[in-house]
Amino acid sequence: MSFYPPKRTLMGPGPSDVNPRISLALARPTIGHLDPEFIRLMDEIKALLQYAFKTKNLLTLPISAPGSAGMEACFVNLIEAGDTVIVCQNGVFGGRMKENVERAGGTAVMVNDAWGQAIDLDKLDAAIKANPDAKAIAFVHAETSTGVRSDAQAICKLAQDNDMLSIMDTVTGLAGIEVDVDGWGADAVYSGTQKCLSCVPGISPVTFSERAQSVITNRQLPVQSWFLDMNLIMGYWGEGRQRAYHHTAPVNALYALHEALTILREEGLEQSWARHLRNHEALKAGLTGLGLSLLVDEACRLPQLNAVGVPKGVDEAAVRQRLLQQSNLEIGAGLGELAGKVWRIGLMGYASNETNVRLCIHALESALLAQNVPLNPGEGIARVDAAYASSDGA
Amino acid sequence: MSFYPPKRTLMGPGPSDVNPRISLALARPTIGHLDPEFIRLMDEIKALLQYAFKTKNLLTLPISAPGSAGMEACFVNLIEAGDTVIVCQNGVFGGRMKENVERAGGTAVMVNDAWGQAIDLDKLDAAIKANPDAKAIAFVHAETSTGVRSDAQAICKLAQDNDMLSIMDTVTGLAGIEVDVDGWGADAVYSGTQKCLSCVPGISPVTFSERAQSVITNRQLPVQSWFLDMNLIMGYWGEGRQRAYHHTAPVNALYALHEALTILREEGLEQSWARHLRNHEALKAGLTGLGLSLLVDEACRLPQLNAVGVPKGVDEAAVRQRLLQQSNLEIGAGLGELAGKVWRIGLMGYASNETNVRLCIHALESALLAQNVPLNPGEGIARVDAAYASSDGA
Repeated sequence: MSFYPPKRTLMGPGPSDVNPRISLALARPTIGHLDPEFIRLMDEIKALLQYAFKTKNLLTLPISAPGSAGMEACFVNLIEAGDTVIVCQNGVFGGRMKENVERAGGTAVMVNDAWGQAIDLDKLDAAIKANPDAKAIAFVHAETSTGVRSDAQAICKLAQDNDMLSIMDTVTGLAGIEVDVDGWGADAVYSGTQKCLSCVPGISPVTFSERAQSVITNRQLPVQSWFLDMNLIMGYWGEGRQRAYHHTAPVNALYALHEALTILREEGLEQSWARHLRNHEALKAGLTGLGLSLLVDEACRLPQLNAVGVPKGVDEAAVRQRLLQQSNLEIGAGLGELAGKVWRIGLMGYASNETNVRLCIHALESALLAQNVPLNPGEGIARVDAAYASSDGA
Repeated sequence: MSFYPPKRTLMGPGPSDVNPRISLALARPTIGHLDPEFIRLMDEIKALLQYAFKTKNLLTLPISAPGSAGMEACFVNLIEAGDTVIVCQNGVFGGRMKENVERAGGTAVMVNDAWGQAIDLDKLDAAIKANPDAKAIAFVHAETSTGVRSDAQAICKLAQDNDMLSIMDTVTGLAGIEVDVDGWGADAVYSGTQKCLSCVPGISPVTFSERAQSVITNRQLPVQSWFLDMNLIMGYWGEGRQRAYHHTAPVNALYALHEALTILREEGLEQSWARHLRNHEALKAGLTGLGLSLLVDEACRLPQLNAVGVPKGVDEAAVRQRLLQQSNLEIGAGLGELAGKVWRIGLMGYASNETNVRLCIHALESALLAQNVPLNPGEGIARVDAAYASSDGA
């Protein structure tokens, strides 16, 4: 029997609500992965990704698999057995980077910060001084597990100043907050489609600087993954009309990515960042009105992913279940150390809008009241109103 | 600007024409990868894949990336540094297996057969005797580069009799010809969505026997790929309601796979194989009527992929270009050793139908006439008529 999914509103850590234009693009007729029209699509996607990443890097393309594979593509191409990588960890995904370094035969030197804190630049600097021969610094720009933004520009500069490569995870960052690959001098960057691009999950955009590309080209040993070997992928995604077959591209998923990037370009990068911030301000006002608090300090908080403390005595899973069942609204649970302690409320891409903010505050209010949490009914939504009124006037 | 692909008829080596039911499934609303409804979808997909593969293997699931990643998943999970693998090569994809073995730190002992020939069992047997400690035998059941079917049952039996694992590529085989994973005792098998399942490209169904699963669970070293580590993937796709987050599943692509497998189940496996054979017979008759010949002997020819010799003096690329431009019809070029020497005409899944056979014969006839190839106009299509009349009467 065919599967008909319910229509949810996706305000978790991703996937986020998909723009209907993107769903329709996905259903367009499949063409061959060597069709001249498909080659044109590939060229347009590369140019649109360069726009989104703010880069002129020629090696900018979508990996044919989810963000975890984008991460792996960066590590297995740049790291060889014996290499040392300084890995900043302040959430789940730094830990995954460590796994990637070690499985590539490298040694990971960990710089740990508390979950919910930004990466401490002084600690990183000390680790660099203690490991001057490290090949790369790997870090998460926008931690999906905590909602923290770290200072990517400063970290990339530390890497450059010490002649190390920078490997940046901005799966949740891209299109939601500033990402400036060339301005920051980031060397290897990966993202995902299912966060602030509002596209379906399954593809990972990546970009490599000239410096990173030359490291890949001049490796001593072959890349351990055939599927993710950028030397081979370049032959298919490279310049010119003659593309060497590598693997069958996920044609329809790339239609969707193209449409998502087209929508981003129509709106404009800066406008997209501003929209994410405006809706975050309204959500934050509403949450405060419900008596809830955010985990992350304002200075390093991601507008697109809000880690909200679960009040004492509240059954957090029951709240999520009620939202899903009564309002078809998905919010996220805490991951790892934060499991049971926070909800993660996403306002990503197409889902970052006023309707969703109001839906979420209304639904949370009634779920909290059902668990006898003391709060002023109506206060949350009144503060949402005020926030939008103030930003409309701005 | 949005991208609107042309409507092609896809009769190359894949992707094949996508059933419109599958395109529509793809566009259904995205839900979260931990949504209870999504867990239900995953369970249904596993059961449908078990049907398609003819297996009771619990470890049967779709890898979130194309067939090349399915291949890599089999090798990196089963092979460790120092292992020897006997690799049968009779086309492009055996060569890719060699790459996979070597990048996993193993040694590949090659058993080479001519492109267009089935794997020679005597040569394989000799290689087994010469390498009694080999861990696995890897082979391609249905070679997409040549259109050859090898005797998978006999090869799997040789592996079992010699206490080796069998690793089988049936990317092009599944749903087009018999695949009987349990009946043959195959240990690790991967396929693709974009061939005889008529689904969009991007996902790779895999299945592992209990024996293979226990090899994976008892490895000495971690799997070199984090993304493809079956020990971790099992935690997400495993039994029970509690699924450990591994990576964000390609939700919409899995809607499509579910629909493709539902369609296969509605038609029935045996009926699907019979339909592929019937349309192949008609295509073969038509090609013969045009004076063209097939590369592969009838005894080991794949009905779903026909390697057709390019007549002397014909510009094969011009023929393909004309088909594409005049009829929106895609057929494939030769790969590797066969580049320039053959066309590859696919009749896969939804594309395996009478309309497509007729379209292809008509279009080829006019393309060959345009290049002054001597042939009897109308003879090709007359033979197609006769073939269908004869199979209708059968």
